[in-house]
Amino acid sequence: MALTGRDLVSILDVSNDEITLVLDTAEQMATALGWEESTEQQPLAPLDRILATLFFEPSTRTRMSFESAMLRLGGSVISMADAKASSAAKGESLADTARIVSAYCDIIVCRHPETGSAQALAEAASVPVINAGDGHNEHPTQTLTDLFCLRRHKGTLEGLRAGLCGDLRYGRTVHSLAPALARLGCEIIFISPPALVMPEEVTAKVQELGGAEPEVTDDLPAALDGLDMLYMTRIQQERFADPAEYKKYQGVYVLDEKLMKKAPEDMIVLHPLPRVDEIALEIDDDPRAVYFEQARGGVPVRMALIALLLGIVEETQSGKHSGLVEP
Amino acid sequence: MALTGRDLVSILDVSNDEITLVLDTAEQMATALGWEESTEQQPLAPLDRILATLFFEPSTRTRMSFESAMLRLGGSVISMADAKASSAAKGESLADTARIVSAYCDIIVCRHPETGSAQALAEAASVPVINAGDGHNEHPTQTLTDLFCLRRHKGTLEGLRAGLCGDLRYGRTVHSLAPALARLGCEIIFISPPALVMPEEVTAKVQELGGAEPEVTDDLPAALDGLDMLYMTRIQQERFADPAEYKKYQGVYVLDEKLMKKAPEDMIVLHPLPRVDEIALEIDDDPRAVYFEQARGGVPVRMALIALLLGIVEETQSGKHSGLVEP
Amino acid sequence: MALTGRDLVSILDVSNDEITLVLDTAEQMATALGWEESTEQQPLAPLDRILATLFFEPSTRTRMSFESAMLRLGGSVISMADAKASSAAKGESLADTARIVSAYCDIIVCRHPETGSAQALAEAASVPVINAGDGHNEHPTQTLTDLFCLRRHKGTLEGLRAGLCGDLRYGRTVHSLAPALARLGCEIIFISPPALVMPEEVTAKVQELGGAEPEVTDDLPAALDGLDMLYMTRIQQERFADPAEYKKYQGVYVLDEKLMKKAPEDMIVLHPLPRVDEIALEIDDDPRAVYFEQARGGVPVRMALIALLLGIVEETQSGKHSGLVEP
Repeated sequence: MALTGRDLVSILDVSNDEITLVLDTAEQMATALGWEESTEQQPLAPLDRILATLFFEPSTRTRMSFESAMLRLGGSVISMADAKASSAAKGESLADTARIVSAYCDIIVCRHPETGSAQALAEAASVPVINAGDGHNEHPTQTLTDLFCLRRHKGTLEGLRAGLCGDLRYGRTVHSLAPALARLGCEIIFISPPALVMPEEVTAKVQELGGAEPEVTDDLPAALDGLDMLYMTRIQQERFADPAEYKKYQGVYVLDEKLMKKAPEDMIVLHPLPRVDEIALEIDDDPRAVYFEQARGGVPVRMALIALLLGIVEETQSGKHSGLVEP
Repeated sequence: MALTGRDLVSILDVSNDEITLVLDTAEQMATALGWEESTEQQPLAPLDRILATLFFEPSTRTRMSFESAMLRLGGSVISMADAKASSAAKGESLADTARIVSAYCDIIVCRHPETGSAQALAEAASVPVINAGDGHNEHPTQTLTDLFCLRRHKGTLEGLRAGLCGDLRYGRTVHSLAPALARLGCEIIFISPPALVMPEEVTAKVQELGGAEPEVTDDLPAALDGLDMLYMTRIQQERFADPAEYKKYQGVYVLDEKLMKKAPEDMIVLHPLPRVDEIALEIDDDPRAVYFEQARGGVPVRMALIALLLGIVEETQSGKHSGLVEP
Repeated sequence: MALTGRDLVSILDVSNDEITLVLDTAEQMATALGWEESTEQQPLAPLDRILATLFFEPSTRTRMSFESAMLRLGGSVISMADAKASSAAKGESLADTARIVSAYCDIIVCRHPETGSAQALAEAASVPVINAGDGHNEHPTQTLTDLFCLRRHKGTLEGLRAGLCGDLRYGRTVHSLAPALARLGCEIIFISPPALVMPEEVTAKVQELGGAEPEVTDDLPAALDGLDMLYMTRIQQERFADPAEYKKYQGVYVLDEKLMKKAPEDMIVLHPLPRVDEIALEIDDDPRAVYFEQARGGVPVRMALIALLLGIVEETQSGKHSGLVEP
């Protein structure tokens, strides 16, 4: 299996075909979880593997989503939810931490405030490392989750028109999503205030992979036209050193009923969550608002990824418990 | 099963009969845990369910008691021990948190510093929610644990005379316990300094449910006469904004050997723990001091409640591992 | 089994023979983990036991190593990673905490900043307690891990010449290791700056157990001659009240290539980790640098200890999954 033993630091570490493999496997996982009405949740056989979460930044949903995925696979979890209070405070290097934690587990999921930290961990670790966010650099498993939701609703990932809106400068989710969409042949439009535009290096990557310069605007209403998917993001207060600077951008985009009336009838709305005020609560019941379903997909997607990196998914065809357990 | 899929936010969410069902099921759990000398702890079959703890306030015993209960049932746990450091800090609403965490687990246990928070979580969550303390409002699983201990020692819950002593104003355990006892037909006497009397709304509820006005005193020695149960509580320093205010009440009631000599021979002493100085260490060996046994009961009681809310307890009659595992 | 139900607070709580039993059992665990090329990792049967970690001080590797060990045994874990934020903050005594946590688990692992805390917990708990570090007093499972690595490389633990270098005053790992080595008949040389020499009471213990006064020096290069093992330790910044005081000793010993050239060819280098700068990165590939392998050994050693204290290791001879699961 091509993914066995590998790391996932950048979304570009996996090819389009490998993304398809992950999403197909995630569909099997969703079935095992009882997502389809006709299916029943399968009892799990215990899986003799340990996932370690190393979180140097707080996180609710990402950490819990990974832990839930590993437990749903029948495996176990050890967590360092506040890693910076520990060895890092004693002056240990990331490489040393990676080497030692490798001795305690079979796969590592890390989040860290600095760009490149996941790469450093992956190089030193002797087990697969999954980047769950490194500063404002990347968040590739969020992208896999986004694509899972997108493919379920659109039937394809290719040739769609996607709007990415909000804090494109600091938001790591869009820094992973945009290159992935470009490589899949999607048209992309970046929607942000001028001060929060997509970083130059991401734009260059998108242009190189997609073969076309991405459109750029600060006008959300005008950008809605013709979109297959609108990806809203939160202006992240914690990325601003100065609270006054944050206040300037808070509320600059608010997707509400009025805007949704202008939007295409088949335009789905995604959001990596948590949201603050950029999506009005009145939208939640609109069938195009699929962000809670999107979040729910994080579990089967991460189950699939973990199973593929651990190399335990070949058994999927063999029968027992969607075959996830070693013989 | 009547409790399947329901929430437990207030102790009054469950009827007297449903309380009896929980306590009867807890007795089966205690047997499965090997509490009786004749029984041996049963090996657990794995249970394919995940409990999530969402604690916006620190807690040792309550969180660990729930986690232990879920693990003893053969299930798994994901924990957000310091929830306020996470999504809440990013401005996410409780309702959004509830919706998303519902995607990661099968049942949620929450603790939060604000009254009503558990209700808000329960309304938004798509899985059962158990309130493990919301501000000074309620703590219903502590009450179930209290009643489990009380019934074991008194053989009944009805028509007892109960003294509730200490910080009745801010103590959420007594805000759940008093209405439950009143509805069971117990006589209640409230023992507290005038500044820490039971809130008006709880007193009104007790009167309505019990059909009689509760007695009120600040004189612990005089109140001991005729009691079947004395429920001591800690003056909770963390509920006072002003430390000087706390100091005024610290040590106002201390149950010691001298007082225990005055107390009825069959009066048991309960305490939700932790204690500070309101119960002298010299009492610990008195057979009427049952608070450590009471704490121990928290595990089978929470096992029973979780199993009933998850609807996996019908299997109890079927044989295997006290029948807790799905076929 | 002699160790069933006992505590491990000091390394001297176990005899030389009992240390041998733990290390022999750890070898079996390493085999079950697939350490030998010929062996394959055994699937685990679930173990119906819960380990509780009570950490009143932050720790990465020790807590994770214990949790990994318990999970590898097939058991479960409940964790109080930041115990001081909880009941302790409400004024609860260690004895009360121990009594209550005993109701939630089958074995407790504790770390606490105060000398004697582990003993206090062990006396009050009704389940076995393992000391994972109490102030600068002791850290006996680190010593077992050290001895496991040492025996694997030297074939024996007796009659070796060992140098202990660095912060001997505050380093609890050497306070457990030195007496253990002395009792095993090793020659010991203490290498530290005068201000960080071994405390008087540990030196006295070493002399009494070993029958000879330990050598003392501050000259690392001169001390290398004839060593079988050099045990490097970190100058622990968190043990100094005054940062300026710490700065004086930082970097006082740095083991680098130049020094390793002077060292005996069969002298292995151990370190309890984390390291800061006392071992140069250039040494990591030297075959004598075994500290990462040493850290890896923490898992089978702790598996062995937990299994022995829980009394579940007699089954080891019986066949299934290195026999760790109860019938």
